[in-house]
Amino acid sequence: MALSLSDIRAAQKRISPYIVKTPVLTSTLLNTWLGHEVYFKCENFQKVGAFKARGGVNTVGWLIENGIKPKKIIANSSGNHAQAVAFAGKQFGIPVTIYMPEYSSDVKIKATKSYGAEVVLSKDRNVTDSLVKEASKEEGTYWIPPFNHEQVICGQGTAVLEGLEEIEGITAVFTPCGGGGLASGSLIAAKGFKETIKAIGVEPLNANDAAESLRKNSIQKLQGVPNTLADGAMTLSVGDITFEYLKQLDAFYEIAEESIVYWTQWLTHLLKIRLEPTCAMPMEAVLQWLRTQKKPQKVMVVITGGNMDQKTSAKIWAKDYLTEVPKL
Amino acid sequence: MALSLSDIRAAQKRISPYIVKTPVLTSTLLNTWLGHEVYFKCENFQKVGAFKARGGVNTVGWLIENGIKPKKIIANSSGNHAQAVAFAGKQFGIPVTIYMPEYSSDVKIKATKSYGAEVVLSKDRNVTDSLVKEASKEEGTYWIPPFNHEQVICGQGTAVLEGLEEIEGITAVFTPCGGGGLASGSLIAAKGFKETIKAIGVEPLNANDAAESLRKNSIQKLQGVPNTLADGAMTLSVGDITFEYLKQLDAFYEIAEESIVYWTQWLTHLLKIRLEPTCAMPMEAVLQWLRTQKKPQKVMVVITGGNMDQKTSAKIWAKDYLTEVPKL
Repeated sequence: MALSLSDIRAAQKRISPYIVKTPVLTSTLLNTWLGHEVYFKCENFQKVGAFKARGGVNTVGWLIENGIKPKKIIANSSGNHAQAVAFAGKQFGIPVTIYMPEYSSDVKIKATKSYGAEVVLSKDRNVTDSLVKEASKEEGTYWIPPFNHEQVICGQGTAVLEGLEEIEGITAVFTPCGGGGLASGSLIAAKGFKETIKAIGVEPLNANDAAESLRKNSIQKLQGVPNTLADGAMTLSVGDITFEYLKQLDAFYEIAEESIVYWTQWLTHLLKIRLEPTCAMPMEAVLQWLRTQKKPQKVMVVITGGNMDQKTSAKIWAKDYLTEVPKL
Repeated sequence: MALSLSDIRAAQKRISPYIVKTPVLTSTLLNTWLGHEVYFKCENFQKVGAFKARGGVNTVGWLIENGIKPKKIIANSSGNHAQAVAFAGKQFGIPVTIYMPEYSSDVKIKATKSYGAEVVLSKDRNVTDSLVKEASKEEGTYWIPPFNHEQVICGQGTAVLEGLEEIEGITAVFTPCGGGGLASGSLIAAKGFKETIKAIGVEPLNANDAAESLRKNSIQKLQGVPNTLADGAMTLSVGDITFEYLKQLDAFYEIAEESIVYWTQWLTHLLKIRLEPTCAMPMEAVLQWLRTQKKPQKVMVVITGGNMDQKTSAKIWAKDYLTEVPKL
């Protein structure tokens, strides 16, 4: 491994003045039903409402620590990464421009602006991508990518490290996988913390580029926009840096849409929190994995964020899944 | 006043081993938009997912403290009071029977049973009410009413007391009003804590029996089932004990359904929590009240609970209100 626990610890120290030490929640009822313990590291309560704040702040902090204070920071994103970079720039007094597709949710555009960033809207993701690439050529401008960057990975890994430090005896850590930044950081944190802790990745079946890449041992790219409610895991392909870490995961699960809805409803109900479908998804993997275990386990799931628009909320609550109690 | 802050303090001490000291949340974004500070006492994270656990546990604890350990505890409820009494009985090892109408949400029936209570379902609320009345005649049986009981009121008041102890300088406290147990307890706690703190009650316009009662200075009863999403405030009338306290509130607001939906969406989005429409409702009253204030205020709103079924959730998220940012 290129990165190790000491890099995550350095990131943890670097970002601690700027981010929230988020709570770890558990549900007595769920634990009773499953006969195992499940702990939820609640990054929905993180700054900007998602773990992404960690990677953004860590990258900017690391640049400054290394004597590279950018004149300007830029990023392209329709989601939480936009807000995270805007937030990070604000903490260090660096101007930020975010390139977002026009169809980004209004709520996310407004939130990004509220952190003082300039937002440039364009027709679609292709235009956005070429604009950010062009802008990055300007001297003194630093482009923070959403996942394929060592310092982004280290920042994201601090969530799991914090959780492991708080709850003793965790045996497995589950994270959703989009571009693989969180899954990579979590792997490094978990294995460094205790080698026997399993690090497990989870992806929507309808956006399973990482699973396909792992099967074929080369990075595969999704064709077109995937049809999944787990919008945090819609990324078309993983990166060359994250892929090397994803290969080291202990297991990788692909989850059907119905299970994603089921667990979004149940975790909302049991934990009384607002969470994105992306991070409810790993619970189905937790169940599948627990069925293979003979001893009681203590697992940790990262609740990656709580930013969800009305349209997705309406889809999540269209049908009643609360009538079927979770069971192994 | 018959009850005073010392009674609430006694309740606080009595229930503390059994209940959660819930967090107080705030939203920097909302505070910036309003130019005032709003603090949310989050009883959705309370045992059974609602403040009702406080009143239930306090009443049973008080009975035992006074040498009256019931052989059996009973209650009639379709909502959070059912779970609260079941939970309270379990803490003190007393058998509980809850009489619920068949149309109670499946989730609440299951949760009540999960605390070990016997659940008796019947056709409608009238049958439920006569059954519990009949059962209460049995020797050694104690019937815990949902609000019209001094020890229930004292238990509910502990939520606001806890909040005031945590956040310095609160100038007004807002609570939803159903039967008036929480509003009464909050009034006693707030005025006892500091006489200048305003205690304000809030009710759905579509279930405004308390407002009508205050206008006519006699208890008015709603005819038929009121049409409101704030199901925690659907109670047909307040009680003779609570009414005397409600008369002492500094203000009382009646809120339209659209505002209830608006604030359920916005508080969910800003605080990243699951909350019942009943406790989002007071935010509209907060805005109306703040518009009359000349100095910056520090208000507290009690997030009464987070138990909401799929049908209500679907209604809340049917239309998009997140496009209109809250403003004074």
